[in-house]
Amino acid sequence: MIAPDAAVLAARRAEMVALFDTAPIKHHFGMVLTYDEQGSAVFDLPYNPALDHALKGTHGGALATLLDNAGWFTVAPYFDTWIATVEFSVRLHQPVARTHLTARGELVRLGRRLSVARMEVRTPDGALVATGAGTFTVTSAVRI
Amino acid sequence: MIAPDAAVLAARRAEMVALFDTAPIKHHFGMVLTYDEQGSAVFDLPYNPALDHALKGTHGGALATLLDNAGWFTVAPYFDTWIATVEFSVRLHQPVARTHLTARGELVRLGRRLSVARMEVRTPDGALVATGAGTFTVTSAVRI
Amino acid sequence: MIAPDAAVLAARRAEMVALFDTAPIKHHFGMVLTYDEQGSAVFDLPYNPALDHALKGTHGGALATLLDNAGWFTVAPYFDTWIATVEFSVRLHQPVARTHLTARGELVRLGRRLSVARMEVRTPDGALVATGAGTFTVTSAVRI
Amino acid sequence: MIAPDAAVLAARRAEMVALFDTAPIKHHFGMVLTYDEQGSAVFDLPYNPALDHALKGTHGGALATLLDNAGWFTVAPYFDTWIATVEFSVRLHQPVARTHLTARGELVRLGRRLSVARMEVRTPDGALVATGAGTFTVTSAVRI
Repeated sequence: MIAPDAAVLAARRAEMVALFDTAPIKHHFGMVLTYDEQGSAVFDLPYNPALDHALKGTHGGALATLLDNAGWFTVAPYFDTWIATVEFSVRLHQPVARTHLTARGELVRLGRRLSVARMEVRTPDGALVATGAGTFTVTSAVRI
Repeated sequence: MIAPDAAVLAARRAEMVALFDTAPIKHHFGMVLTYDEQGSAVFDLPYNPALDHALKGTHGGALATLLDNAGWFTVAPYFDTWIATVEFSVRLHQPVARTHLTARGELVRLGRRLSVARMEVRTPDGALVATGAGTFTVTSAVRI
Repeated sequence: MIAPDAAVLAARRAEMVALFDTAPIKHHFGMVLTYDEQGSAVFDLPYNPALDHALKGTHGGALATLLDNAGWFTVAPYFDTWIATVEFSVRLHQPVARTHLTARGELVRLGRRLSVARMEVRTPDGALVATGAGTFTVTSAVRI
Repeated sequence: MIAPDAAVLAARRAEMVALFDTAPIKHHFGMVLTYDEQGSAVFDLPYNPALDHALKGTHGGALATLLDNAGWFTVAPYFDTWIATVEFSVRLHQPVARTHLTARGELVRLGRRLSVARMEVRTPDGALVATGAGTFTVTSAVRI
């Protein structure tokens, strides 16, 4: 697949940031989306005690949410219809507690219908907390 | 590995339900844990609009959280120290919106150090929303 | 998606068995395909020392091949064009050596474009050697 | 975990190459193991028609075998006992036929007991055929 040109991608990434601001889960978790210079989606999640599990570390589901988001929002700007997550894997490398987390996606394969991204979550000091990869499919749903 | 006897497992499952009640994320999502007659962990999540994504469906991260929980709490009662999720996979079969969700785990392999469970999420009418499987490891952390 | 009727499925399964007989890897490994009464693809692999790894157990790649096959051939009869494996996961539960292996697929989700199966490999005494799941997509390639 | 020093790693990688030469599957597939300057295991598989599926492309199981190998042999030199593959995922990006394939591993996380690698398979012109990642565990089996 041929990627859209840089101006289109930049415009769509700006739209994605605006879109994400309308997502209830953004506010419920406290996540912030930006895009880095390579066009990767970056999600910051300042420590939110409401996402702790019973042993008071950050729940793996919060890490999975960051990974899914990082992949989805890295891939989505390449398409003019909505995409859907088909599947993703999560590998948890170390427990984390009471820390800011940053997730980042990276496009691995851009396909006409199916694309693949890999994702990671790190702490501010660079420790690798979780990695994953996922498959995303285009849908017929037209973006507004 | 030889599983603990039924009375021990029943007692630990009751402890797990009490433990989960102390998890901040339980209350932030609105999840309820029970165990079924086979000893599988069952998580109910009544529709919580705060977990919607921007297109107003339930975020895949919420489904991943349910899957992780269903596997972890199915496996945990078999051990007298804490377990940790090593990895899990998530396959999303259909988008869902504005619906109660129920996740269930099933023990696939009980090992001395590494165990495997599979998990699923369904709607009240039985539609299969997501499936997954995961690997869980014992840790040296003693349960209180 | 509505599944084809039973007669069509039965005919396609018979075609699949014939097709697999033309696969060079079938003969290189020594695999045999049948379908069980539920329509699941079953692959038998009598012990083949050529598939041993250096420590003289059966190589995980042979187990992965069985899993991929069990999923692909369980899903394929539902479609009138070829399908392709999008992704699959492999969990290895115990090392095996010098034994016959049997893999079996199970349809989890039948979709218009994307389907999911889960798969397992057992020894003749029923020990669970490996489990997996995968996503399969229809392609536009017409079956002959 | 602290990695062994460079001389130890270099010696173990040389042992691994010798070890792999004793693997029956090496010869059955026609795979060649080397290590690159970063210490990643590299597997070359010249086109072997015996690994074709019925449609005469390279079977996904052969790709999975390369991925598993690339991860296992990248991680193994860091330990003085044998390791075992716990699980790995496989994503197939495009069908391939009649071509040399090269797989490469990359260490993602080195742990005392559990380590993670990611792996990829490319054609000679650099096309990305498959990606994966896996978890590997130390065992108590002493290397000879």
